[in-house]
Amino acid sequence: MNYVLKSIPSRTVKPRNSGFTMAMDKGLSLREVEDFIEVSGDYVDIVKLGWATSFVTKKLREKIDIYRAADIPVYFGGTLFEAFVIRNQFDDYVRLLDEYQLSFAEVSDGSITLDHGQKCRYIETLAKQVTVLSEVGSKDAAKIIPPYKWIEQMRKELDAGAWKVIGEAREGGTVGLFRDSGEVRQGLVEEILTQIPEEQIIWEAPQKEQQVWFIKLLGSNVNLGNIAPNEIIPLETLRLGLRGDTFDFFLNL
Amino acid sequence: MNYVLKSIPSRTVKPRNSGFTMAMDKGLSLREVEDFIEVSGDYVDIVKLGWATSFVTKKLREKIDIYRAADIPVYFGGTLFEAFVIRNQFDDYVRLLDEYQLSFAEVSDGSITLDHGQKCRYIETLAKQVTVLSEVGSKDAAKIIPPYKWIEQMRKELDAGAWKVIGEAREGGTVGLFRDSGEVRQGLVEEILTQIPEEQIIWEAPQKEQQVWFIKLLGSNVNLGNIAPNEIIPLETLRLGLRGDTFDFFLNL
Amino acid sequence: MNYVLKSIPSRTVKPRNSGFTMAMDKGLSLREVEDFIEVSGDYVDIVKLGWATSFVTKKLREKIDIYRAADIPVYFGGTLFEAFVIRNQFDDYVRLLDEYQLSFAEVSDGSITLDHGQKCRYIETLAKQVTVLSEVGSKDAAKIIPPYKWIEQMRKELDAGAWKVIGEAREGGTVGLFRDSGEVRQGLVEEILTQIPEEQIIWEAPQKEQQVWFIKLLGSNVNLGNIAPNEIIPLETLRLGLRGDTFDFFLNL
Repeated sequence: MNYVLKSIPSRTVKPRNSGFTMAMDKGLSLREVEDFIEVSGDYVDIVKLGWATSFVTKKLREKIDIYRAADIPVYFGGTLFEAFVIRNQFDDYVRLLDEYQLSFAEVSDGSITLDHGQKCRYIETLAKQVTVLSEVGSKDAAKIIPPYKWIEQMRKELDAGAWKVIGEAREGGTVGLFRDSGEVRQGLVEEILTQIPEEQIIWEAPQKEQQVWFIKLLGSNVNLGNIAPNEIIPLETLRLGLRGDTFDFFLNL
Repeated sequence: MNYVLKSIPSRTVKPRNSGFTMAMDKGLSLREVEDFIEVSGDYVDIVKLGWATSFVTKKLREKIDIYRAADIPVYFGGTLFEAFVIRNQFDDYVRLLDEYQLSFAEVSDGSITLDHGQKCRYIETLAKQVTVLSEVGSKDAAKIIPPYKWIEQMRKELDAGAWKVIGEAREGGTVGLFRDSGEVRQGLVEEILTQIPEEQIIWEAPQKEQQVWFIKLLGSNVNLGNIAPNEIIPLETLRLGLRGDTFDFFLNL
Repeated sequence: MNYVLKSIPSRTVKPRNSGFTMAMDKGLSLREVEDFIEVSGDYVDIVKLGWATSFVTKKLREKIDIYRAADIPVYFGGTLFEAFVIRNQFDDYVRLLDEYQLSFAEVSDGSITLDHGQKCRYIETLAKQVTVLSEVGSKDAAKIIPPYKWIEQMRKELDAGAWKVIGEAREGGTVGLFRDSGEVRQGLVEEILTQIPEEQIIWEAPQKEQQVWFIKLLGSNVNLGNIAPNEIIPLETLRLGLRGDTFDFFLNL
């Protein structure tokens, strides 16, 4: 930190298990990745190459290498996993992870219908090779999954070997954990937290109001994901009570 | 592409006549232009320097040269044409195109009232010097042009020598083809398509939902415009059925 | 300017007292700062490092130096002043300004409750060391300050030594001068202007519609603040009547 301020909430440091921030890269250039790391490298724990953007990304290997050199692991968005699975190319996906020497992978069913037992078997298989993040929640706003189902799926996916489970929100923050308006499905989140330890969950929360809501519920060191690269610094100030939205909250503790 | 996925919709390649993407640069630095080309050069067919931003753009000539070296033609937004016309400086505009050795120009009447015969004469004149894109639709949300008028104007502008016609939407996507909410004027688009061949139209569609709508109506190789530089990669994944929004659509074909 | 257009509204040049543009940097890298200056240096009069982002900004000293070398002064957002004051660290804040050789500082009470006499004493104290910008308006949407209060506070803060007063709007443009929808509190602005000279006010107006509204009310050379770096060029075209939104307005003058 650049100067001393008293009574700043304590933050975990890398490598973090909680207070984790996952950023979404949906098409940065190599130079932009360097800039991103210069500014936000200490505050980003992992980077997702959004959905299947890696298919059309130029200099993909160089990009992954730049992140890796800064100790920031990279993984492919869950939609890519689904794109391989729906085409009966799961074996190709396994080889792809190997070819790019990735140490993380996401298993999700946001765009496809996947028997949950089968989803867990994918998690089990991949967990032998990489650290698995598994995602619960549909990208389809019409598919409302009831809370008990979220909990059951999260538990089974953790049991199958997922390192953490991700609560779905899309890039825009309007499905899964959130209503169409972006408002948090508060009852859902609270019910999940009665059953699943919070350190095992990453909440996708691209909008500032969503981040504020989770920080107020779970504190500075909540795990958050789908953060845009230029919102990492703003998020870090929210976590530290140094922006209007959470300024009062930490003072009152 | 970085790896093999089966059953990916086929995409046209540059130089494209359909499946064309027009990006809007509203003030990138030279280095940002280089980065943009690194990431998205294969997927961008032409760049518009938004409205009259070229008036205040630093190093304009160098910027145009960088794009040109990457085989991406640049043109000035239609508002600049209108700014010259309303000041009785059309001859200066012609000289300006020449001075910057531009090969494309836009003719529009989004902010001025222009007799349609006169608009067509401007198209005719400019078509002798450059490839003309002509734009139909007002930037004024209150000026609703009925479908038959859109069709009549588009046809006459193509007859006058326009290479393609552009359906207006602004940078934000809220006028012309769209309602205030950003929703597509579906009946308008469908009626236009009964009369004007789709390869001759570029649909301005800055919002993701608008892009999805046009891709679902006209397929991967619809011509789209006013795409922000950092949305070119996301758009390309939509065209390929590799993002949630169009994932199902192409699988069901 | 890159070419000659007749009847362009006249714009003040740097160093400006009116027609002033304050940009908000919420986490640019050093290279992004260089790019920003290349593109917009002539149009930006001062840069705010948003709220307390300077706490977590890497290479803070180098960043300030790059701006300074381009004759663009930098100051810390008012929330940082408040973070020091609430912790009884005002003396540390004074030393911090000195340590970074800043020539501007903001005094605000958007997130804390501060006796107005005390606020004015802070202004008085800091005005001996730096040029003070003081801000009126709460970041709390529920705290509606009536117009006569805005005026009284603005007048007292100017009397205490503030160079200009800032009308609050947050980064998003939704409190203080604006309703939740982003709409301008028109009556408030008009009443303020009956009492406070417009050159002494900087209006925070991050949204395009807000900028348009102020330009139409007060002309090209209105002082505007909280402009995102990539919106400086678009704003400059609005000031010059070279974008659809203000195109007619200046022609009709």
